[in-house]
Amino acid sequence: MPQLDLASPDTALPAVRDDLLGLEPYGAPQIDVPHLLNVNENPFPPSAALAEDLGRAVRSAAADLNRYPDREFLDLRKDLAAFLADESAIDEPRAEQVWAANGSNEIMVQLFQAYGGPGRSALSFTPHYSMYPEYARDTFTAWVTAERGPAPEFALDADAVTAAIARHRPAIVLLTSPNNPTGTALELDVVRAAARAQAEHRGLLVVDEAYGEFRRDGVPSALTLLPEHANLVVSRTMSKAFALAGARLGYLVADPAIVDAVRVVRLPYHLSAATQAVARTALAHRAELLGQVATLRAERDALSAHLVRRGHDVAPSDANFILFRTVADRHDVWQRLLDRGVLIREVGPAGWLRVSVGTPDDNAAFRDALDIADPVEADPR
Amino acid sequence: MPQLDLASPDTALPAVRDDLLGLEPYGAPQIDVPHLLNVNENPFPPSAALAEDLGRAVRSAAADLNRYPDREFLDLRKDLAAFLADESAIDEPRAEQVWAANGSNEIMVQLFQAYGGPGRSALSFTPHYSMYPEYARDTFTAWVTAERGPAPEFALDADAVTAAIARHRPAIVLLTSPNNPTGTALELDVVRAAARAQAEHRGLLVVDEAYGEFRRDGVPSALTLLPEHANLVVSRTMSKAFALAGARLGYLVADPAIVDAVRVVRLPYHLSAATQAVARTALAHRAELLGQVATLRAERDALSAHLVRRGHDVAPSDANFILFRTVADRHDVWQRLLDRGVLIREVGPAGWLRVSVGTPDDNAAFRDALDIADPVEADPR
Repeated sequence: MPQLDLASPDTALPAVRDDLLGLEPYGAPQIDVPHLLNVNENPFPPSAALAEDLGRAVRSAAADLNRYPDREFLDLRKDLAAFLADESAIDEPRAEQVWAANGSNEIMVQLFQAYGGPGRSALSFTPHYSMYPEYARDTFTAWVTAERGPAPEFALDADAVTAAIARHRPAIVLLTSPNNPTGTALELDVVRAAARAQAEHRGLLVVDEAYGEFRRDGVPSALTLLPEHANLVVSRTMSKAFALAGARLGYLVADPAIVDAVRVVRLPYHLSAATQAVARTALAHRAELLGQVATLRAERDALSAHLVRRGHDVAPSDANFILFRTVADRHDVWQRLLDRGVLIREVGPAGWLRVSVGTPDDNAAFRDALDIADPVEADPR
Repeated sequence: MPQLDLASPDTALPAVRDDLLGLEPYGAPQIDVPHLLNVNENPFPPSAALAEDLGRAVRSAAADLNRYPDREFLDLRKDLAAFLADESAIDEPRAEQVWAANGSNEIMVQLFQAYGGPGRSALSFTPHYSMYPEYARDTFTAWVTAERGPAPEFALDADAVTAAIARHRPAIVLLTSPNNPTGTALELDVVRAAARAQAEHRGLLVVDEAYGEFRRDGVPSALTLLPEHANLVVSRTMSKAFALAGARLGYLVADPAIVDAVRVVRLPYHLSAATQAVARTALAHRAELLGQVATLRAERDALSAHLVRRGHDVAPSDANFILFRTVADRHDVWQRLLDRGVLIREVGPAGWLRVSVGTPDDNAAFRDALDIADPVEADPR
């Protein structure tokens, strides 16, 4: 598949937008190696029994597949609400507070289409998820950033957030907890301060909790703040903790008025009958799917401790990945890991790499490969 | 589900874009009645055997559902290319010329994101599909229109198209063949003229063939013109002829450079593993799925003739629906049909209604209900 070459446009071709010239499609390399630790997938596939049930659900939905799907998918929204009440110990949101789309990327673009656009700006804090500027680019929203605190904590405090909001008065603030690629969770006082500062100019606050279910004990979800802040959106996904990246199901919880605004810009019937059937079946089997979250958290903490013991700077992680600073050149380390069948991600500040937490076997392979790919002095501590 | 009420905004809520205030989400009423003839669905559901195969395909894909789907879905693109070569008797397009998304709505928005945007305009011809202006609105593209010819033909000729293009010099021209809601197919000389006129200012021409497979014998597809015009996109869907509205699979064929531009603005992994599996299975069973197209075309022609005999103005249709002018007030006719269990669509020019072609039983029910809902003098001819 050729990569995009719009830099020297053929004049027989239609003129693409100027700001897209020379760009390449977003995406990490898709390489087939034994240990895929590059896109923060959950390494545990559905059981055969669950795969069977997912197939059965789609077979049943297929009887009606000549008809458009339920445009409002209220059953799925109720199921998501019930799950959130369980997971974050909150009062169950009403279905009217919940919305879903094909991955949280689509959720975000819908929010940007409703609340961003020309003449408006969106703010986030670096290092942030690489797709964020694309939401802004594709909706013609100005993209502004401020910096998170210094490595290795990459912390974000209320003062830094409110100062950046005061400077930019953005239509949309995008906070991430835990943050990708640093793994850093946010204190609720930061979220509260951001929501208040945004409310002063009727701005939106989106808290992206794509990795929320992996947070450490005692770390609360921003979901608990929804009753206090009408301008707060919490975004989640079934791609990570639920181990369903292939199903493409992102969702949000917010005031019903925000959901209604999204309903105006959403494409009608954007969620297929198969997607709805798969997501509802997965939610019904959530004990199994989320059953590995505890394992992944324990593996993460052990791997973090291992990297610290090796002498790396390591960002404290509440997610299913770890950002760490290499000793040798990061690209060389990345390549040497890949040569040993371990694919991780070259992302984040210069000199840092991100590794997803895999199965115990994946993580052992990573540790062994790292000893060769990025050797350190014997026991630096 | 409450409808959107953003007309008197609550100041505690974030400020939605001004141009969305007071708007309602797009969509025909979803009402449960015996005869659903309002959204141009194919009335024939998949067989039990096919539903079984679709379920089996998703069960198999589910084994890997913790992983992100194939971002480039080349297998599906090859299958779509092979189908198009069969259906329209063209040389098989390369996979690099084919692209797919969650319904042709998403295809269109991707094209508008790549080739439209602020400072650019898109042109179509009224009456047109109701979603077209939303593609423009959601991508901040100026929306301009010109009129199709007079009823009941609603024809569009090369002179009218090139005159409108010369007037507006649009970044995107959207032609529809067969047109929704009129059913009118386009002569290829119109498409050729539009492609040439667009090429003069490096504009894009999109021919929306959502209903292409229903065209009458001897009516060619714009696919045959792809080798001649590097700025031509032909868009198709599996929602109509393929009877898979619930699966959400739209696609396009174009120069690989246009596909590459779309790849830059597409959200990564926008097509789920389930969608890919369902679409590929449906394509493998296309003899069954498309087996009802001949029936629907015959039913359409019979129903058109029936409406003409009743004395209605009827737009000649190459699609799976018919636009006709009512005798009594159109809303009253629509309501009286609904009262008799027949849901059709109040769309198109004032005084006209659109009825989808259903099963022979649906169509008989519509004819009977219409005798009461919109009585005419005995044998007006």
